[in-house]
Amino acid sequence: MFVNYFITFVLMEIRVRKATPEDLTEVVELIKELAGYEKASSEVKITIDELKKDGFGNQPWFWILLAEVENQIIGMSFYYIRYSTWTGKNLYLEDIIVKQQYRGNGVGQLLFAETIKAAKELKVRQMIWQVLDWNEPALNFYKKFDAEFDPQWINGKLRFEY
Amino acid sequence: MFVNYFITFVLMEIRVRKATPEDLTEVVELIKELAGYEKASSEVKITIDELKKDGFGNQPWFWILLAEVENQIIGMSFYYIRYSTWTGKNLYLEDIIVKQQYRGNGVGQLLFAETIKAAKELKVRQMIWQVLDWNEPALNFYKKFDAEFDPQWINGKLRFEY
Repeated sequence: MFVNYFITFVLMEIRVRKATPEDLTEVVELIKELAGYEKASSEVKITIDELKKDGFGNQPWFWILLAEVENQIIGMSFYYIRYSTWTGKNLYLEDIIVKQQYRGNGVGQLLFAETIKAAKELKVRQMIWQVLDWNEPALNFYKKFDAEFDPQWINGKLRFEY
Repeated sequence: MFVNYFITFVLMEIRVRKATPEDLTEVVELIKELAGYEKASSEVKITIDELKKDGFGNQPWFWILLAEVENQIIGMSFYYIRYSTWTGKNLYLEDIIVKQQYRGNGVGQLLFAETIKAAKELKVRQMIWQVLDWNEPALNFYKKFDAEFDPQWINGKLRFEY
């Protein structure tokens, strides 16, 4: 067991790069994997065409960083700009996802650190995100980065059909 | 007392229009008024210049609807696009603010309804926002519109200094 862990750890060389439209099939798989974990698979309505149009046109609405091992995608960070009336442009981390079999190897930390780097390049005052109150592993993960948490806010929503 | 209320109600003709850069001094006043109510005045770092640059350039990061009575600004809705990996483009209502002395006259409802209209013009699947869990008047307001609420999410944050 120890040997296996040791070998995995040593051999994994993780590369982080920006996603291109060619990656979107795998991106959608990652999105569905996380939605399953969050018990909300039926909420995933997004399509590859939509992601292509919205993320890779003249005005990209989001950016994706991919983590790869030997050219295989093993995780991603999905982020965009949100505008606060108190602090202006914020980087909002929508999702950070690592494939099940690659968890516990620092991939998430690497993606989070690279997203912080992206936030600082954008000169935003804050990087923000949301986490489910029952998701202990995620909460503990963010605590390592000295994150602040505010549980006072409730999410509200109206759905539209066309 | 009854007479006063009656007169106020009848005479108020409310107009809703998009904000221009010339309105930003008053917009910042409204932002500060809400921050005071939410017990967070010291959190307001935004400047008029920043709002001008970010909201009225080639790529606007937000939009503002203003409610006016006799050319006097009495409230606003401040919104922008957020990108969900589940539902694509969402309209996010950052703030809906009505000046204290004009509350209770349907100004907030009018602004909310106009924001729903903007959301539908943008063909987004959802309109979303956050509300403080102790803000009963706001929660009751949104319930009138059959909004869904999800209290499971905690806001996380990292602050950056440059």
